[in-house]
Amino acid sequence: MKIYDISMAVGAGMPVYNDLPEKKPVITVTRDRSVGEVFESRIAMDMHTGTHIDAPLHMLPDGSTMDGMDPARLIAPCSVLDLGHVAGGITAADLEAKSIREGKFVLLKTRNSETDEFEKDFVYLAASGAEYLRQIRVAGVGTDALGIERSQPGHDTHKILFRSGIIIIEGLRLKGVPEGEYTLAALPLKIEGAEAAPARAILIEE
Amino acid sequence: MKIYDISMAVGAGMPVYNDLPEKKPVITVTRDRSVGEVFESRIAMDMHTGTHIDAPLHMLPDGSTMDGMDPARLIAPCSVLDLGHVAGGITAADLEAKSIREGKFVLLKTRNSETDEFEKDFVYLAASGAEYLRQIRVAGVGTDALGIERSQPGHDTHKILFRSGIIIIEGLRLKGVPEGEYTLAALPLKIEGAEAAPARAILIEE
Repeated sequence: MKIYDISMAVGAGMPVYNDLPEKKPVITVTRDRSVGEVFESRIAMDMHTGTHIDAPLHMLPDGSTMDGMDPARLIAPCSVLDLGHVAGGITAADLEAKSIREGKFVLLKTRNSETDEFEKDFVYLAASGAEYLRQIRVAGVGTDALGIERSQPGHDTHKILFRSGIIIIEGLRLKGVPEGEYTLAALPLKIEGAEAAPARAILIEE
Repeated sequence: MKIYDISMAVGAGMPVYNDLPEKKPVITVTRDRSVGEVFESRIAMDMHTGTHIDAPLHMLPDGSTMDGMDPARLIAPCSVLDLGHVAGGITAADLEAKSIREGKFVLLKTRNSETDEFEKDFVYLAASGAEYLRQIRVAGVGTDALGIERSQPGHDTHKILFRSGIIIIEGLRLKGVPEGEYTLAALPLKIEGAEAAPARAILIEE
């Protein structure tokens, strides 16, 4: 069994959406060795920091929240798709070239995985690509961008996926992971009422 | 395949160590529907909030940190031990009564799992119990208390485990999980330089 860690490290130097300073995580030491043997710290972070899972509430006013997401859906057969040739939006045509099967998680490996910086022109999932995945009935979709779309007007990609019950994982790191079949384990924090949650994600190759 | 979610929900009403207000998580809405379609929030939380994994730096000045912990060690064969009859510290004698095998994760299910409040006299792992687990060479130990020990002088339980490379998971919820054999998946956030990290943990029953 080989494990790929496909999670982004969380720290002050990590990329965040649009490089906005207020989106950076802040780690504070709350107890150090000057008062005893115990070292403790605290973190403040956006729910959308690094590798994270979105819940429908993120874009749908009556959408469900993270604590309602069954973790059984997040241990799943998964296909990593190499889309390194795509610039801009991943379309239905790009995905038709792959053999995607119903019920699978699909992870979109793009040129985003080649950089550790936030790139304003990151590769995203176009609405036609989301619509294609809805028709195939995938279980979920993961991206190596911090957003599954680039704040497209109307947020169609998010909405198509959320309304179809397709789980969205953002901020994956897929460099070095070959195209192929895996078991995904992507476990988010169980945060009450939240529209998203930071997660740790790995791929298991049997 | 049956999945047990053994994680604590994270929210304002959750129990925290010694009920200290400064240890409570704080969730803040950063963007709501008054300015558009997108809802976003942020969380501030101790690394030791709810279900979490400790790294050796928590108690050892030269100890390793969370981002150095291989996630392959956190997908592991696991024994849930029913210790519901124990009050106070779980000793070597309590553990000798179980058939614990080398290389396994062991999860200590106690009366702690019966309450959602912080109890000052929670059941913990006594130093003799930690020493016994070190001799058996378990891979890790999980507890349904917020601490593997109750701030014992010298913190022997933590130190015995950390110095032996035994992983410590705290804040599990084991109510309703029968004693027996499972696969554990316990994935912490990959926080750079941290002495602990919040995690989501599940048990898989094949």
